[in-house]
Amino acid sequence: MASWVPIPEESDFSLQNLPYGVFSTTTAGPRIGIAIGSKVLDLKALVQEHVFEGLNFDATTLEQTTLNAYAALGKDVHGRVRRKLQEILKEDTQLGSLLRDNQPRRERCLIPMNSVKMHLPIVVGDYTDFFIGLHHATNCADFLRPGSDIVQMIPSFWEAPVAYGGRSSSVVVSGTPVHRPKGQYRVNGQAVSGLCQQLDFEVEFAAVIGQGNEFGQAIDVDQAENHIFGFVLLNDWSARDFQKNEFATFTSKNFGTQISPWIVPFEALEPFRTPPTKAGRPLPDYLTQKETNSAYNIPIRATLEVDSQRYHVSECNTKFVVFSFAQMIAHHTRGGCPLRPGDIVATGTMSGPTRPEEGCLLELSRYGTDPYEMAAEGATENKIRRTYLEDGDIVELTAQVQSRDGLGNVGFGACRGEVLPGL
Amino acid sequence: MASWVPIPEESDFSLQNLPYGVFSTTTAGPRIGIAIGSKVLDLKALVQEHVFEGLNFDATTLEQTTLNAYAALGKDVHGRVRRKLQEILKEDTQLGSLLRDNQPRRERCLIPMNSVKMHLPIVVGDYTDFFIGLHHATNCADFLRPGSDIVQMIPSFWEAPVAYGGRSSSVVVSGTPVHRPKGQYRVNGQAVSGLCQQLDFEVEFAAVIGQGNEFGQAIDVDQAENHIFGFVLLNDWSARDFQKNEFATFTSKNFGTQISPWIVPFEALEPFRTPPTKAGRPLPDYLTQKETNSAYNIPIRATLEVDSQRYHVSECNTKFVVFSFAQMIAHHTRGGCPLRPGDIVATGTMSGPTRPEEGCLLELSRYGTDPYEMAAEGATENKIRRTYLEDGDIVELTAQVQSRDGLGNVGFGACRGEVLPGL
Repeated sequence: MASWVPIPEESDFSLQNLPYGVFSTTTAGPRIGIAIGSKVLDLKALVQEHVFEGLNFDATTLEQTTLNAYAALGKDVHGRVRRKLQEILKEDTQLGSLLRDNQPRRERCLIPMNSVKMHLPIVVGDYTDFFIGLHHATNCADFLRPGSDIVQMIPSFWEAPVAYGGRSSSVVVSGTPVHRPKGQYRVNGQAVSGLCQQLDFEVEFAAVIGQGNEFGQAIDVDQAENHIFGFVLLNDWSARDFQKNEFATFTSKNFGTQISPWIVPFEALEPFRTPPTKAGRPLPDYLTQKETNSAYNIPIRATLEVDSQRYHVSECNTKFVVFSFAQMIAHHTRGGCPLRPGDIVATGTMSGPTRPEEGCLLELSRYGTDPYEMAAEGATENKIRRTYLEDGDIVELTAQVQSRDGLGNVGFGACRGEVLPGL
Repeated sequence: MASWVPIPEESDFSLQNLPYGVFSTTTAGPRIGIAIGSKVLDLKALVQEHVFEGLNFDATTLEQTTLNAYAALGKDVHGRVRRKLQEILKEDTQLGSLLRDNQPRRERCLIPMNSVKMHLPIVVGDYTDFFIGLHHATNCADFLRPGSDIVQMIPSFWEAPVAYGGRSSSVVVSGTPVHRPKGQYRVNGQAVSGLCQQLDFEVEFAAVIGQGNEFGQAIDVDQAENHIFGFVLLNDWSARDFQKNEFATFTSKNFGTQISPWIVPFEALEPFRTPPTKAGRPLPDYLTQKETNSAYNIPIRATLEVDSQRYHVSECNTKFVVFSFAQMIAHHTRGGCPLRPGDIVATGTMSGPTRPEEGCLLELSRYGTDPYEMAAEGATENKIRRTYLEDGDIVELTAQVQSRDGLGNVGFGACRGEVLPGL
């Protein structure tokens, strides 16, 4: 499916993608757009041009400064809007007069991506971070609770998706730097207060909730995907020294969590389904999902930029999971906990089975005992080593999949953040 | 300080209190009011009568359906509004024409409390549940991590306030019943999926955040109290069997958390300050607070209503803490985590040193091994026993303090919730 909007070969943003974001320009404040090629299509402007009339939904939701209200409308509406946009943007469109052949409108509505600033696309009501990465969980159990394997640490690990409550208020969009946090850790058993000495990233994948559920009402596992608006990459910055000193995850995680700027629609990832690498077992009925291709085969690359040189860190994959998003949602709401539009449900670190597939320095450096070597892109003899992150390091996560039937690339844009010195 | 509004002797709501809430009537939707005696004073109506003119704040914040925007205005504004309301409501007011002597306005603005429905007063952005109750933490360590004392379980317990991320979306107001949740637990090591068999309450005290802080900016411990809008009682419903089976607190807590309907202003509790029962040590500078009376001496009573008979469960106290709210806030934001207006910061269970002072059935029943006996109010020979909660049980938390200088009672209204059968 080709578009009359030029789409560079390496672009994340084909007609198969059409991800939603919130952007501003030097002349106008935050508004909703979708990415197409090297452009952002201003949906607020399209609404004001009455382009969506007849689609039978509340189009004022696309004139807001966040996507929450639009996400809440549910999959049917999102599907209708998506198909309409594909019709308008495809090469052989029958609707050329709406945009392609209307030069003034086209110039008002299609904005060069390199001239926009991206904002957090949703107000996050709650952010839940799961711990369902097969290799990450089994690799890290002994760090999190010395002497434990994963089942000693979490008796239900194979039977129910494990999670903790993340911090909504410190979820920030790609590009927002994070200061090395202050907190407490231990040296030879003695408490020390100061700057984090073991700063880390975590490569995660996350769903953004669309339609929510009422207090007290569980979501059926086979209906759960209907509650997903779309997906983002997520870097769960982590202070490993703080983490080891506290109960679970508080100051070790609450100083910043970063997401990629574009929410890739649920529909866009349909061609990339795959079964989970290792499914949980034995499963109760409420977690038994009819769909077996319930995970996604999406490689996520992590790179480190140091002194303007980019180094390859590792390549994870979203398939290395024990549970699907549908199972996470079913378990999350089993007791009646409401999910709200804009909530984030993340997977935890998506490490693979080999070292170059691990998604955080805690694993890559063997709990800080064996610095990990990384080669510069395009110059493999140029290498650096890292135990944990240093000030000035820029962590970037990217993911791009190419659909087999030639629909075009689907990517997320970069989830990028710099480590600034502590304040 | 007497009021011309009749204040029954047993009322929680003297002129010293003036707590904020959100209420509706059969004829008008949710709006902001304060409690005084057996009445609710409609602040939206007062704004529309221009009563607050000249106080130099954005009074439209009092015309909204939640208190978040008003809470964000900060302590100076809240103090000015409080003093104005006390001036208007006191017996010998010089401002009688504003309300007391203006019968039509008085009847529009003062609404019988028994005719209103209370709503969740704030949109909760994030809810953080601490674990700083001295006796609760030390009593429960072995339950939460068998074989551990509190320091083996949490190395930093004495040096930093411990917390986990609670679930914002399932915070509900007093009066909202909770269904016995479904989830997973273990019997003889085998995973079982079904209704919670060990349903519990937890007696907690919580601050509601007023002015927030920016991403990356810590709050100084001696400034932290300026970020507290007020206080509520909180019942942290807990599924003990689920809790033991999962990593920390997820489905064991996310099915419901209940708060009392009235937010007692920070200023109203000034006369009830006391030092924490046992302060953390050794403390780093950022947790060293100048104010030593940094906790509160507020007894919280828990009762159980069964078949319309009320039984006394226990009496906790908010002084049984290791850290103050100021220290919780300073540690929470140490790495730059933003607090937002309306966020909830709770203490964890406020158990005292003896069994009749314990704040949850987990403790009262000795981990479920020794059913706890409770006497009916006014009929001590009428007794019941509980290991954990049964369907139909109504848990009610109340707290009322009497100020020594005759300013009148300060109470929270009941935090009350019924256990309904599982769905």
